[in-house]
Amino acid sequence: MVGTLLLIKPNLNLHFSCVSSQHPSHFTLKPKAAVTITNPHPYWASLQADIEAHLRQAIPIKEPLVVFQPMHHLAFSAPRTTVPALCLAACELVGGHRHLAMPAASALLLIQAATHAHEHLPLTKPRPIPEPEPVHLYAPNIELLTGDGIVPFGFELLARSDDPAHRNSERILRVIIEISRAVGTQGALNAQYIKTLGSGAQSDGKGLSHVERIKRAAEKKEGGLHACSAACGAVLGRGSEEEIERLRNFGFYVGMMHEMLKRKENNEEEEEEVIIDEVRNLALKELQLFKDRDVEAISTFINF
Amino acid sequence: MVGTLLLIKPNLNLHFSCVSSQHPSHFTLKPKAAVTITNPHPYWASLQADIEAHLRQAIPIKEPLVVFQPMHHLAFSAPRTTVPALCLAACELVGGHRHLAMPAASALLLIQAATHAHEHLPLTKPRPIPEPEPVHLYAPNIELLTGDGIVPFGFELLARSDDPAHRNSERILRVIIEISRAVGTQGALNAQYIKTLGSGAQSDGKGLSHVERIKRAAEKKEGGLHACSAACGAVLGRGSEEEIERLRNFGFYVGMMHEMLKRKENNEEEEEEVIIDEVRNLALKELQLFKDRDVEAISTFINF
Repeated sequence: MVGTLLLIKPNLNLHFSCVSSQHPSHFTLKPKAAVTITNPHPYWASLQADIEAHLRQAIPIKEPLVVFQPMHHLAFSAPRTTVPALCLAACELVGGHRHLAMPAASALLLIQAATHAHEHLPLTKPRPIPEPEPVHLYAPNIELLTGDGIVPFGFELLARSDDPAHRNSERILRVIIEISRAVGTQGALNAQYIKTLGSGAQSDGKGLSHVERIKRAAEKKEGGLHACSAACGAVLGRGSEEEIERLRNFGFYVGMMHEMLKRKENNEEEEEEVIIDEVRNLALKELQLFKDRDVEAISTFINF
Repeated sequence: MVGTLLLIKPNLNLHFSCVSSQHPSHFTLKPKAAVTITNPHPYWASLQADIEAHLRQAIPIKEPLVVFQPMHHLAFSAPRTTVPALCLAACELVGGHRHLAMPAASALLLIQAATHAHEHLPLTKPRPIPEPEPVHLYAPNIELLTGDGIVPFGFELLARSDDPAHRNSERILRVIIEISRAVGTQGALNAQYIKTLGSGAQSDGKGLSHVERIKRAAEKKEGGLHACSAACGAVLGRGSEEEIERLRNFGFYVGMMHEMLKRKENNEEEEEEVIIDEVRNLALKELQLFKDRDVEAISTFINF
């Protein structure tokens, strides 16, 4: 239930754990129109196509094939998410050309692909593995090695994009920190710890219920990765600190919305569509800072 | 047999695959004194102690313990190598204070520790696993997650060391590229592909014998990691390009020597101590550029 996922009760304020403290979000529920997932929007599809074209250049299928074929397969067969494309969209919103954010978008796609491969590795001791199970084209040791190899390659792509003529070294280093944290043990990987180990993986030490753990994991993974992606796009597009933080919040809400919609599509949630709409409103509120710009494109991430 | 490891035959030139093309190494064998491994030199021990103290600050045991205890354990229980310490030694040789190279040394230690943990993960399909088998304090999924988390943390440490006052952003980005390549599918991970998949993992497509594969894997792993480490230390210590390349070559020879000595200690090699001495001579030759400086400290990496 989406409502339960967000720990919503009528007339109670909603409080997320991961949003920038600069713009805390509290709101009271009001019924709104229902939302459904439709096909990917052409803007998202265009951004995604650009990222994949960039990656096809970066990871050609070349000799030795035993190394590069699995790498190519892993990068292009992992489930697509809106995380990398949001990075480019945020960059464009703050006035940067999307190519400025391409290395960060590519690194995010690659690291998510590596995480997906490792999540489905067949270990001797069973563990919770997310559905659907991918087709394993390669032996477990190759899947392990390929995931391990693709992560530093993502950081290499980022570091290589340094261009002294653009004086962007410090922005790239900032993005490396953002991505390291968002994908690491305090970020998306923390979601796996929470799912595996329960509330002991929480730094606040609170005993969380199963439903609360799902919510916290979503905040760390989908919320945190989208927040990071949008913030990185804004950093690389030379956005102001205010713009970066607003887009970080926007990204967080995008991620939470997508997670809710996914759970709804998978019939894990049955009600409280109204909550999704409330999160969309919170996201839209973050875009008010950009009211003099064309926010239509990035709004497609929350309007289906 | 060390001689076989290096494909040495009397009166034939020795040719390594990984050394900088700036200073190719060919030499004809001449018998020299035997070498043995003794206890770690106090200089190495001092550098290693500094790195571990730095990491104890960077990875405190804190809440949530289920996340940070395994991370701490993984970082400090993996077998010690000379790779991280060589980074500080190279930095000092070019005139930098060792703290300048500390983030790179720490990242190298962490990424090596992650590789070690993943090398010993119990997968459902058996694979060649290096001896000795470590004590598995944690379940396989936690070992997998911890290894996955520690790699981005290593890159984060590096990126965080950026200090605009020192204008070192570009050097740090260069080091991130160096380390990404040295640990990735073209570097140390390639050694695992070669060991697992045979000569198909070679980009030159040559059919290699078992012995040749061991040599090539050592060049990629021990040679490549030490070469990277020394080059990174020189970069961060503000060495010249000539100094960086000489130290890269020196590091490569250090790595190859250590691998030969390890194999000898493990009774995998029985003869050809002379070869180790020849590699030492090649390493010393690279230090000639620094003849006006005190090379005694860094020479301890090749004088046992």
